[in-house]
Parts: sequence; C-alpha cells; structure tokens
Amino acid sequence: MIHLPQGFLFSACAAGLKVSGKPDLAFALAPDGASAAAMFTRNQVAAAPVIVGREHLRAGKGRIHAVIVNAGNANCATGAPGLKTAKTVCQALASEIHVRPEQIFPSSTGIIGVPLPVEKITVALPDLIAVASPDALAAFASAILTTDTRIKIASEEIEHRGQKAAIVGVAKGAGMIHPNMATMLVYLFTDVAASPGDLQKLLRSAVDQSFNNISVDGDTSTNDTVLLLASSKSGVPLKRIHTQFERALLNVCRSLAQQIVADGEGVKHVVRLRIEQARSEDEARQIACTIANSPLVKTAWAGADPNWGRILAAIGRSGVKIKPEKINIYLGDQQICRKGAANKFNASKAHEYMSQASYEIRVTLGLGKASLEFLSCDLTAEYVRINADYST
Amino acid sequence: MIHLPQGFLFSACAAGLKVSGKPDLAFALAPDGASAAAMFTRNQVAAAPVIVGREHLRAGKGRIHAVIVNAGNANCATGAPGLKTAKTVCQALASEIHVRPEQIFPSSTGIIGVPLPVEKITVALPDLIAVASPDALAAFASAILTTDTRIKIASEEIEHRGQKAAIVGVAKGAGMIHPNMATMLVYLFTDVAASPGDLQKLLRSAVDQSFNNISVDGDTSTNDTVLLLASSKSGVPLKRIHTQFERALLNVCRSLAQQIVADGEGVKHVVRLRIEQARSEDEARQIACTIANSPLVKTAWAGADPNWGRILAAIGRSGVKIKPEKINIYLGDQQICRKGAANKFNASKAHEYMSQASYEIRVTLGLGKASLEFLSCDLTAEYVRINADYST
Repeated sequence: MIHLPQGFLFSACAAGLKVSGKPDLAFALAPDGASAAAMFTRNQVAAAPVIVGREHLRAGKGRIHAVIVNAGNANCATGAPGLKTAKTVCQALASEIHVRPEQIFPSSTGIIGVPLPVEKITVALPDLIAVASPDALAAFASAILTTDTRIKIASEEIEHRGQKAAIVGVAKGAGMIHPNMATMLVYLFTDVAASPGDLQKLLRSAVDQSFNNISVDGDTSTNDTVLLLASSKSGVPLKRIHTQFERALLNVCRSLAQQIVADGEGVKHVVRLRIEQARSEDEARQIACTIANSPLVKTAWAGADPNWGRILAAIGRSGVKIKPEKINIYLGDQQICRKGAANKFNASKAHEYMSQASYEIRVTLGLGKASLEFLSCDLTAEYVRINADYST
Repeated sequence: MIHLPQGFLFSACAAGLKVSGKPDLAFALAPDGASAAAMFTRNQVAAAPVIVGREHLRAGKGRIHAVIVNAGNANCATGAPGLKTAKTVCQALASEIHVRPEQIFPSSTGIIGVPLPVEKITVALPDLIAVASPDALAAFASAILTTDTRIKIASEEIEHRGQKAAIVGVAKGAGMIHPNMATMLVYLFTDVAASPGDLQKLLRSAVDQSFNNISVDGDTSTNDTVLLLASSKSGVPLKRIHTQFERALLNVCRSLAQQIVADGEGVKHVVRLRIEQARSEDEARQIACTIANSPLVKTAWAGADPNWGRILAAIGRSGVKIKPEKINIYLGDQQICRKGAANKFNASKAHEYMSQASYEIRVTLGLGKASLEFLSCDLTAEYVRINADYST
C-alpha cells in the first residue's frame, strides 16, 4: 500500500523525447508550495537542470511549487543554450501556474550532449497542469525512467498521538549507480511541516546511509538529484515527530536504493556486502566500493562463482591499510576465506547460494569496530549489450 | 626478428598445473649469473612468490642465476604454507644448479587461494635444466600465459661503435591490466654490463612510461612482477650506451604493454587515449584512468559508439579539478566535443573510425602543458563470459 502525503498533485505525458514514444515528462505540483531540500551530483560536469535547480533553491529560499522532469535527454554538455533551455522550461511553467521561476525545480535524464527540444516540453505543460491529480504518482514514477525496467516507489506512514503524516518517494536508476548518486533521480514528498534547513540536515544523513551505499557500475553521473519536498498539509510539525520521521525517511531511501540496484542494467544478482571490523565507516565504504566496482569480482558474481581471491585482491588494492592475515570472508554461513587464506568449503553449496537473486557476502577485517552494509550487483553480458547500443 | 642477448638459456614444460595440459612451467638460466632489478605489485595482498622474490633480491644483492615461473596457480592467499612452497621451489632449483636459494627468482600466476602442488614443479626441474637452450624463449613466453591468446615478445638491438648488445622481453597479461601492473608478468633479458642499482633506476622509469599507462579492466593484482636481468655477456658497459639502452628498454616495454592491451580478455578495440593540456602528467594519468575504467565508456567503445558524453562525465568525476567549458574531444580528425558541449560531426564516419581494431581519442583540457598517452580497450560481452567462468 502506498501512503500518499497531502498537498501534492502529479501527472505525466509522452512529449516525444523518448524515441520509444513512452511517457517522458513528469510533473508534480504543490499548489500552496512546499519547503524543499536537495542533494546533487558531485561530478564537475553538472547538467543544466542541476545548475538551475541549485540556483532556484537558493533564490527562492527553499520554497518550491512545482517539479518538472524530462527523460530521454539529460540537457548536459549543452553549453549556454542548454542552460537557457532549462530556464525557459521553468519560466513557461511558472507563468502557467502563476509563481516565480525560482519556485520551479527542473530535472533531466537521458543522453548527454544533445540539445533539449524545449518546445516539445513547453507545449505539453498546460495539459500536464490540467490533468494533475493526487493519485497519479505512478504515472510520474514511470515517466522519469530511462533504461529502468520498472517503476520504483516506497512510502511510510508516521503516526503520533492520533496525528498522521506520510512520506513517499519515487526513483529512477538502472545503470551508473554509485556513491555520490550517479545518474539517479529521486523525488521525496511528505506532508510534515518543516523548514528547508531542517529538511536539508535530515536528507543529507539519509542519503549518506542509503544512496551513497550502493553501486551498479561505479560511474557517477552529471544529473543526479535527490529532492525532498514538505507541504505541511498534515499539520504535524517536524519537531513533534522528529525521530519517527528520520526513520521513515531512511526506510524510504533504503527501499528505493535497493530497488535501484535490483533494477540495475542486466543485473541478475543483488549482493549485500557487509564490511565489519573496519577502523571507520569511511574505510569500510572505500573497501566495499573497491570490491563492488571490480569487473573481475562482478563477473564472478555473474557466474555464481565463489572466487574469493578476487575479493581479497580488491581489498588489497582499495587504498585502505589492511592486514591480509586478519581477513575472513563468508558466503552466507560458509567461511570461504580464513585469515587471508583458503578455507575448505562446499563449492556446490556455495554456487547454489550465489545463484539466488540476492544474498550476502560478509567480510571481517580485524581492524576496528566500524561496519557498513553496501548494495551491489553482478556485471553481466546483458549490461554490455544494453550500454554498447544506447546512443546509436 | 628477435634479437637475443647472450648469457641466457630457456626452457618450458607442461607440469600439470593447467587443467588444459598446456605448458605451465617456464625456466630461464643465467649460467654465470645476472644483475637484477624488479618492480612488484602495490597490492597489499602480495602473493608468496612476490614476497620471496623481493627477499631474494635483497639477500642476494641483486644477483640472480635462474627464474622459475608457473602458470595456472598464483600461490596467493595461501598463508604460511604458500610461502614455504615458494621457498621449497627455489631451494630445489638452487640445489640442482649449485647456487644459493636467494639467487633464484620465483613467479606464479593463475587462480588465487589454492595450494600450489609443489611436487609437480620440483619433479620437472631436472628436465627443464637439461633441455634449456638459448633459442627457447618462445617456449618460455608460452608457458607463462593464462587467459592470454598469444605470446608477447619484443626486442631491440643496440649498436655502438661496432659493439652490439640486445634486449628482449616477454610478457603475460590478458585481464586485470592496470597502472601499478595488475596480474602482469614481464621478464626482460639483456647482455649489457650493468649494476643492479643502475638497472633499477632505468626499469622504474620505463615501467612508469609503459606498463603504468595501460588498463584493461582496472583491477590490480597480487602477483605483478617486472624483472630485468643483465648478463654482461655482450661486454658493453651500460654507461657507454646509456641513452640508447634507455630508449631500447622503453621501446621493448611499450611494445609489450601494447601487446598486453591488444590481447586483453575479449578485447575488440585498442584505444589510445591522448590527454593534452593537463596541469601535470599525474593529473593526465588520473583522468585517463577514470575514462579507461568507466564501464559505460568501455561498453560504448565495444559498440563503436561515439558517445562522448560518457567520456566528459568520466573526466568530471576523475577527482582532478577541471574546467568543463574548456574541454575538447577528438575522434581522429573529427572534433566531437567543443568547449564541453556538442560539436556537429559525421556520426557514420565516427562509427566507422571506431570500428577499427585500434584508434586514438584525444582530449584537450585547457589547463596546462602536460600530456600523456594511455592505452585502453573496450569491455565486451566476451570479457564477461571469460571471467564469469574462470575458476569453476
């Protein structure tokens, strides 16, 4: 069951940006506005809508009235004309709904370096506004997809002394998912009453514990955005339900992160890496990332092959100072590496375990007390096929 | 034509370490010894022969009489027994040829974490010694291979005032090739007269300009070794031909590096990345590495797809401070990105250019005067197939 927050309307349409003719324009409206917080890609090549979105949040002091997302074209590496295009979309939408342009939040995803056909978007705006409804979140979630195979939605309800609030999130992911939010769009809507500043703190912490702990292929993108909007329409102030809201936000983000990895391009296996006994969470993340981004490890996972030597070799070149002779590696309840060396295990049982759609690999480092869970996946021939043929 | 240095004998045999039954044990003998220099992997998980090889060079003050290399088993992550095994091989060989164990240099390559069957090696030693000959370098080059499809040899002759010296190298590469010498074995033999210290300086510089500027899949391994042996049998002292020798060594290393990339697992296209106008060679290398290790870039190359946006995005997340609006990208004589944005180009001509077995992509950064050439390759479905099925 999806818990929908009050104060938001959604709609979507096919504006002709995707060659497939599928829906590619998503619209969300907060008729009375919403407090906003956002996190963006750290890639120095930032797409035009990322630049404009950042500007608008600053200029509008974190108040947003509408979100407009197109898929099929990233509006990135499009120079000054691309920036102008992103602004034109916001201006056209702002004038339709009678707000200021800085109260519009734009996003784009898709191919890099191709001019965004702005008229296809602006001509579709009146209809998007006319048909927007509180129930059309799935249509929004569908129109933001690119190579994804399914929509990604997660929600939570928060109850406190008879008062209820809700938070719902939708995401777009597939390939290029990596810490620092590679080619990932996430929109989170809630009806708690909160200031932009409070939302920003909560969002940063939730993103660090969810979207920054996943990796599909190690590429980080130019358009990543996580946006959190709070309409206040539940009438419940954040401070009254701070702990519950924090947990609900994290649950929604973690569920979306898990759905993104599971829908990674060509993914057959989702692997939860549990790194234990690290000196710090940062060191655990660095080790998890190196394992998760090793093509040799990821292809072994594709073959359900308990080749723990490749995992050990990845740990050894992660840049974290380790003690090889203290490392243990577990595949479910079987220990496959003991003190940095081979440990006798049942290979057919291991192969069977790794044939599951999702499973856990646990590494203990013997260095300290920090631990981390990191979601990754295998690298399949299907991934290569999808990405070899994407733009041409 | 292969130029063979004087003072070395080679042989090889099938000792039964490879399941395929192919030759897997390679032997090189310097009957009167040779000055030695070596560079090893920086992976903290170093294989037993790497640890022993390092020890022997130190203990023997850089004098080596024989090299013994096995393929099919990396003798890595094999704990204390693995270390003992590597030493046992050296002791057995030392006693056969009447030298000290520290005058033997061991290497291993293959699967990690499986005990090395030491008897299979020791029993083969007398025959290897008996049949060793100056002409059997190709047999040596063949026995060190794993997933490679062909042997890799390069040589140069140096002439100075009627005196001649030669340098020849053989290599093993295929997958896991990356700066810092991932799963790569290289043996260089020369007959100049040189001290271990002088050889070490020359070797470090040549490796930096060759093997550290290539990447197949970004993984760095536990067994990488580059060994340079100088027999002095030409009678030509290094100092008399220092410049020529330096150039010949670099040429041999670059040729082997190129052969390694071209024979990378599943490789269909070798791509020479030319990074220009960087602030420093290190920054150029960091950018080249990020491009070369991006699965999205490498799969686009597999599809001969001029998707320059993925290259630009890789540059943007390389960690080097860049100015996106100054970046130009060229595919042969076509400019495909101009000042960080799309530049009109002939897509079918670009596709044709990228369908070649090897070609160049040039990036100008507009930041400084340093430049670098870096060899990489595409990521194909074939790579995934090979590596998903290697150990099981």
